[in-house]
Amino acid sequence: MHLFAVPDLPEIGPGDDLAALISERVDLRPDDVVCVASTVVSKAEGRTADLADFPAGPRAREIADRLADLTGDEKDPRFAQAVLEESVDLLMEAPFLLTETRFGHVGVNAGIDRSNVPGGDLLLLPERPGESAERIRAGLSGADAPTGVDTPAATATDTPAVLVTDTCGRPFRHGQRGVAIGWAGIPASRDWRGETDRDGRELGVTVENVIDELAAAANLVAGEGAGGTPVVVIREFDFGDHAGSDNHFREIEGDFVRQALREWDFDG
Amino acid sequence: MHLFAVPDLPEIGPGDDLAALISERVDLRPDDVVCVASTVVSKAEGRTADLADFPAGPRAREIADRLADLTGDEKDPRFAQAVLEESVDLLMEAPFLLTETRFGHVGVNAGIDRSNVPGGDLLLLPERPGESAERIRAGLSGADAPTGVDTPAATATDTPAVLVTDTCGRPFRHGQRGVAIGWAGIPASRDWRGETDRDGRELGVTVENVIDELAAAANLVAGEGAGGTPVVVIREFDFGDHAGSDNHFREIEGDFVRQALREWDFDG
Repeated sequence: MHLFAVPDLPEIGPGDDLAALISERVDLRPDDVVCVASTVVSKAEGRTADLADFPAGPRAREIADRLADLTGDEKDPRFAQAVLEESVDLLMEAPFLLTETRFGHVGVNAGIDRSNVPGGDLLLLPERPGESAERIRAGLSGADAPTGVDTPAATATDTPAVLVTDTCGRPFRHGQRGVAIGWAGIPASRDWRGETDRDGRELGVTVENVIDELAAAANLVAGEGAGGTPVVVIREFDFGDHAGSDNHFREIEGDFVRQALREWDFDG
Repeated sequence: MHLFAVPDLPEIGPGDDLAALISERVDLRPDDVVCVASTVVSKAEGRTADLADFPAGPRAREIADRLADLTGDEKDPRFAQAVLEESVDLLMEAPFLLTETRFGHVGVNAGIDRSNVPGGDLLLLPERPGESAERIRAGLSGADAPTGVDTPAATATDTPAVLVTDTCGRPFRHGQRGVAIGWAGIPASRDWRGETDRDGRELGVTVENVIDELAAAANLVAGEGAGGTPVVVIREFDFGDHAGSDNHFREIEGDFVRQALREWDFDG
């Protein structure tokens, strides 16, 4: 398996065609996995916003006040408002906002980024990263589709997979790591259930979330700094002969940490 | 960055010299990262055990009884005893055991594996995976150390880094992914703080846990099945010009999920 960053991408702005920009710079192969940082997807989709776009309602002011009381941190209530508007569930409101976004991802501040945003205060996550991944993939498909009479039309497996990636922290372990928030052309997980080891015993590992692992790998090669390389190609990843599944974001029913958070209150 | 599995490793047993077995099969380079699955580290260290080694005390019986009441699952109280003996903190006891191991890792069942164990019921995690990684690394160093008069003695940076990896699930997201539980020759994280993007704004991502990302990447290439490939080499990973840190496992003070779990009870 090989990973390389797509070279020489320009600064991305609203309306830019990421699929074309990538295809112009790399000869993609059908089994590549193209990992695109959510920051550039959001910029291309015009998901920049200003704090002034989010006049704070009572709930946002309450959250900001409570946070100031508990931690001494002054949070702009308009920022809390932006987070609430991007979210369907508020898991924690202090000492930081942890929410479920409209598309199912649990993250701090609904993944809203206050850096990396020319011409705006805020960069929101893509509205539907799964659709963003599909759209970018369709663009790659168009660029590479075979046209000869004897060449079969481009099918799902003729086109690279696309991930939209983000970075976020997690419980129990320090630091951030790359995760996938949208995917197309590859199942989220591969299933080892029923497979046995050399000794004929059933394997302990059952379902492996490959898109998060691919996103983590891509993050090792990507850079968000001044020489930004937000798109990484993973070549020769072998999914193997496994069943796949698209379960990715957990529902609260099977997520005991989330149930515990629902009953918990930070008290400073 | 490239990843490949070390080919043709034999089944590993107590006392096997993993460093030698790896060095014989791959011409390692100084900047490689060698990712070794904890299963083979444990086997080499003789961390196989039998349920009979863990006669259940009252606490283990209480946990097994409670689990049977709540979920209908019959858990062997001796298994609960083994988990307790491997742990320093019990975060959840139902519907499954989530603990902190003696070396700081939070995982289900203290990472004890009931598959992949010839000649025993249980495979415990390495006792001190950081020391395991150091030891394997020292073996690689010995195998590769330059001996000529004009060659400087092997230094830290002349020897590949070593990770001991495991797979585990996590809140909020389905499926398991690779993580590092021991490391040597590489910092756990790299620090982007103070660095700016093209626009001169400070980056949102601050501390990136690279050893977990490397372990996740390795898990995409490793296989635990019948043709097991438990050791993966990552070549040409560029840590870059960043400060490093060895913070990896969180303390409860900054871990709000863990604080919430401490106050939470599963009620079926």
